[in-house]
Amino acid sequence: MSNPGTPLGLLLWQKIRSLNTRSIMGVPGDMNLELLDYINEVDGMSWVGNANELNAAYAADAYCRVSGSPGVLVTTMGVGELSAINGIAGSYTEQVKVIHIVGTTSRTAMEKHLMIHHCLGPSPDHKVYEKTSQHVRAAHCWLDNPATAAREIDRVIHECYAQSLPVYIFIPSDMVRLRVPDQPSTGLDLAPRTDKFSRESAISVTLPLLYNAKAPAVIVDGLTARHLGSDVTRELVDLLQFPTYSTSIGKGIIDETKPYFCGIYNGQVSIPGVCEAVEQQSDLVLDLGPLLSDSNTGGHTRSIAEHKLIQVHPHHVSVRGVAYRNIGLVEFLSTLLKSVDESRLPRLTAPGRSPLPPAKDADSDSITQSWIWTRFGEFCKPGDILIADSGTAQFGLPDAHLPQGATFLTQLYYGSIGYSVPACLGAAIVYREQQREGRVILVVGDGSLQLTVQEIGTMVKLGLKNIIIVVINNNGYTIERVIHGPEEAYNDIAVWNHSAMLEFFGAKNGRACTREVRTKKEFDEVASLPEYQRPTSIQVLEVFMDKMDVPWRLQRQIEIINERNAQA
Amino acid sequence: MSNPGTPLGLLLWQKIRSLNTRSIMGVPGDMNLELLDYINEVDGMSWVGNANELNAAYAADAYCRVSGSPGVLVTTMGVGELSAINGIAGSYTEQVKVIHIVGTTSRTAMEKHLMIHHCLGPSPDHKVYEKTSQHVRAAHCWLDNPATAAREIDRVIHECYAQSLPVYIFIPSDMVRLRVPDQPSTGLDLAPRTDKFSRESAISVTLPLLYNAKAPAVIVDGLTARHLGSDVTRELVDLLQFPTYSTSIGKGIIDETKPYFCGIYNGQVSIPGVCEAVEQQSDLVLDLGPLLSDSNTGGHTRSIAEHKLIQVHPHHVSVRGVAYRNIGLVEFLSTLLKSVDESRLPRLTAPGRSPLPPAKDADSDSITQSWIWTRFGEFCKPGDILIADSGTAQFGLPDAHLPQGATFLTQLYYGSIGYSVPACLGAAIVYREQQREGRVILVVGDGSLQLTVQEIGTMVKLGLKNIIIVVINNNGYTIERVIHGPEEAYNDIAVWNHSAMLEFFGAKNGRACTREVRTKKEFDEVASLPEYQRPTSIQVLEVFMDKMDVPWRLQRQIEIINERNAQA
Repeated sequence: MSNPGTPLGLLLWQKIRSLNTRSIMGVPGDMNLELLDYINEVDGMSWVGNANELNAAYAADAYCRVSGSPGVLVTTMGVGELSAINGIAGSYTEQVKVIHIVGTTSRTAMEKHLMIHHCLGPSPDHKVYEKTSQHVRAAHCWLDNPATAAREIDRVIHECYAQSLPVYIFIPSDMVRLRVPDQPSTGLDLAPRTDKFSRESAISVTLPLLYNAKAPAVIVDGLTARHLGSDVTRELVDLLQFPTYSTSIGKGIIDETKPYFCGIYNGQVSIPGVCEAVEQQSDLVLDLGPLLSDSNTGGHTRSIAEHKLIQVHPHHVSVRGVAYRNIGLVEFLSTLLKSVDESRLPRLTAPGRSPLPPAKDADSDSITQSWIWTRFGEFCKPGDILIADSGTAQFGLPDAHLPQGATFLTQLYYGSIGYSVPACLGAAIVYREQQREGRVILVVGDGSLQLTVQEIGTMVKLGLKNIIIVVINNNGYTIERVIHGPEEAYNDIAVWNHSAMLEFFGAKNGRACTREVRTKKEFDEVASLPEYQRPTSIQVLEVFMDKMDVPWRLQRQIEIINERNAQA
Repeated sequence: MSNPGTPLGLLLWQKIRSLNTRSIMGVPGDMNLELLDYINEVDGMSWVGNANELNAAYAADAYCRVSGSPGVLVTTMGVGELSAINGIAGSYTEQVKVIHIVGTTSRTAMEKHLMIHHCLGPSPDHKVYEKTSQHVRAAHCWLDNPATAAREIDRVIHECYAQSLPVYIFIPSDMVRLRVPDQPSTGLDLAPRTDKFSRESAISVTLPLLYNAKAPAVIVDGLTARHLGSDVTRELVDLLQFPTYSTSIGKGIIDETKPYFCGIYNGQVSIPGVCEAVEQQSDLVLDLGPLLSDSNTGGHTRSIAEHKLIQVHPHHVSVRGVAYRNIGLVEFLSTLLKSVDESRLPRLTAPGRSPLPPAKDADSDSITQSWIWTRFGEFCKPGDILIADSGTAQFGLPDAHLPQGATFLTQLYYGSIGYSVPACLGAAIVYREQQREGRVILVVGDGSLQLTVQEIGTMVKLGLKNIIIVVINNNGYTIERVIHGPEEAYNDIAVWNHSAMLEFFGAKNGRACTREVRTKKEFDEVASLPEYQRPTSIQVLEVFMDKMDVPWRLQRQIEIINERNAQA
């Protein structure tokens, strides 16, 4: 062959760069160092270097959610690979595109079953760890054959996009520098395969339902964003002008300042009137990208009659109980958008957003759960992203009214505590890459913070500036206290001195950029400071709150579950 | 049945308490909270509460290594379970007894495939995560049947001991309070099953070899300790008085002050004279508990002729190439100890420990790799434990001369960076439980520290006092720099301000207990301080060293591997 080819390591990064992924997460290790060498050879691509692999996986997940391009992380066989797997499982559950590249031992070492560090037991099978991730990935490949390696990369990237799920690429260390034949640059095939007949059938039954509806409603749920349908969804709801609801997971996909936006629908855990409007008063519900997990459905209390429901799933559409298979979500919504005859749509006046019932503790000087979450909404500006960890923030922030162009990021179904800190890093990296205006605002409990705190060091290392870290200090695992064992020691945590946090992680003027507030007045004062309005370095705000105070949504969901358990 | 029985949760803890495990690692979650309630009901048992689950797994691993009783951790299905799996894989590889208890959803939720938080995808199989750990455990059970639950616990505990490997216990949340029939208190069957005939055969061929040897040697390797053979090994080498070597992994099992102790045997990566003495000059080598991984064998450069080798493995004995199956290590060594006729043993004068060749940089004022590791040996006192992370410490501390009763703990085969910080916690907990005199001395690089640093907060929370944390600050991943990419940015790390570390994690007087040293003189001054001789609170010592300076053992092993790769 006259073609000298491209080193496989370089080819891999070139393919990933073509997806617009520019920052690579991960932790270096002797089995991946040579692969990392090639990152610098690709224009516009750079290595992040996380504090640990779980954090790298979380950051990659958020990178994808915010940028739309796959998050990519590099780890080392076994030790790094397994450290990251919980993050990958979260991406799988929530359908996030992540490419996990694992640097492994050489092919020779594998064949000889050598007891190399990181291997498993005596006479080790060096491929054994690959089996560990088989349930949390859509596809994987071993780049151990120069003849097929390039095709294999394309295959798994296709599956990553088509299924919007994580994939694994295993690369033996001796393969990295090997030159493989260049591929014809036809581009990668990324879209899920759609059955046109099925799509046309679904469209043809959907249109008259839209035209003839008297009280239609739209629910925008999280999987629209995961399957890259945010833009088309925004266009569609703008065209329809039907009363439109988000879910907790879907919050922030559509513009909450529009008159047709009517708040968060979360089954019986909704602001009074919302559940009734969707379930009883509507005659047609267009449910986009539903993810029907417990906390996104008020503890499984959604109840929409099948005869009025059109559900647009990632790979099929269900119209009044009839399933139309093999239709990609974006392709369906795009076709629908083009097919709708605007003049035939019903003209409606949406009721708009219902107010929250007044809180009993509304006159408290101290910061309360009933006050803070809507206050965060007021604090937000267009372009900001609000990131919530598991815990009270996740149940509180659905009440924040987001300005136009602000977004919300949380991991509500998988619900792995600690996710949000590396997610904040991933989001901030995308903001910098894309030179986006806006602040990255992390809201994390003192308990959740402890799992992944070291990623703040990576934020400092990278010189990221537009980050505000709000630590809700309610003295331990409040969400668990209200579930079980309010005064049990297992719901306590180590008491950290957050005023030294930024300084420890190497931030210049770390102390000066760290504040604490206990009253609403103090919060308002800090929130109006220039460094909070337009941060030029990372800010930490510790918000002290009562350890038994919880958002009403959390309280209500727990009541529902307890009632159900009592009946069983 | 008239017997009202015992709540399953309580029974589980009672069984674990009977193994002398007293501290339970883990992170609380809504699926395990009720199980945690029962910990307090068992006398002498307490909950630790780690900062995250990987750390909990590492701490449980070290708890077992130091106490001999299984390390136990509790996590939550999926999110916690997977976060911990890398620690469990390390325990598997290095044959450490760990019991991983996973609190799961209720049996009803499983049957209905409910999309509960932490589950995987749509219509989730709640048992799917169990498959993830199948390659890193010896056994597992689901406590989902009241009739068999007690027997199932016994079965997995037996396998945990017999194989000295991790096991998993999955307990659905609705099973915890259920009363199950009390078991007859016959005690648990813990020993591996031994074939008496096989054992007698092996003993009968071993004894004459011992009696007739002219130049015998003993190697004490790590699996003797993992399989609870430390005590009998010490007695045996004391009786034999043969020249005796440790390995890097086996270091600290036997008393290094004995005249028969001749240093660390690590193939061609040994102090001059050692390799020749073992491989050429000996005519019989009794190799106890071998773990023949790369860094424990000088990069696979051990070469001991089969005809002079007796290997005592965990479950079989190999005498000059003939395998005697189904013999437990402790049972074999105990029988051997009882069977040896001391008067028939050859009387030898061991050569003792060879000195290290003088280092080229011996006259440096700065702290060097050639100086610090033996200095740590001098710093150690009887009863101390030295804990080394992956990196230079792991390759340097084999040169430390340990005083009698001091021990060494590292994870050399699996080699997961960050292991040592939670391991330090686990060791310190055992020291407190057993009211042991002695200091817990952690030596961790600035790179390794970043992966698991938050566990220092748990040390502070528990009020542990006898801990000295030595941070080797050589400005990044030095071990990787010498392998590949010495000046590449991927081998840099975030630059933390370690002087604020203890303060951040809530230690009183954290600043006053933190020091930094750059010269040998400064190190000596700090090492002689009363708070270092007998710490009454956690001390942090940051030792600055050159980023390209490495221990000779690491340098030599890399040379060997590079020579081998160049030939291939």
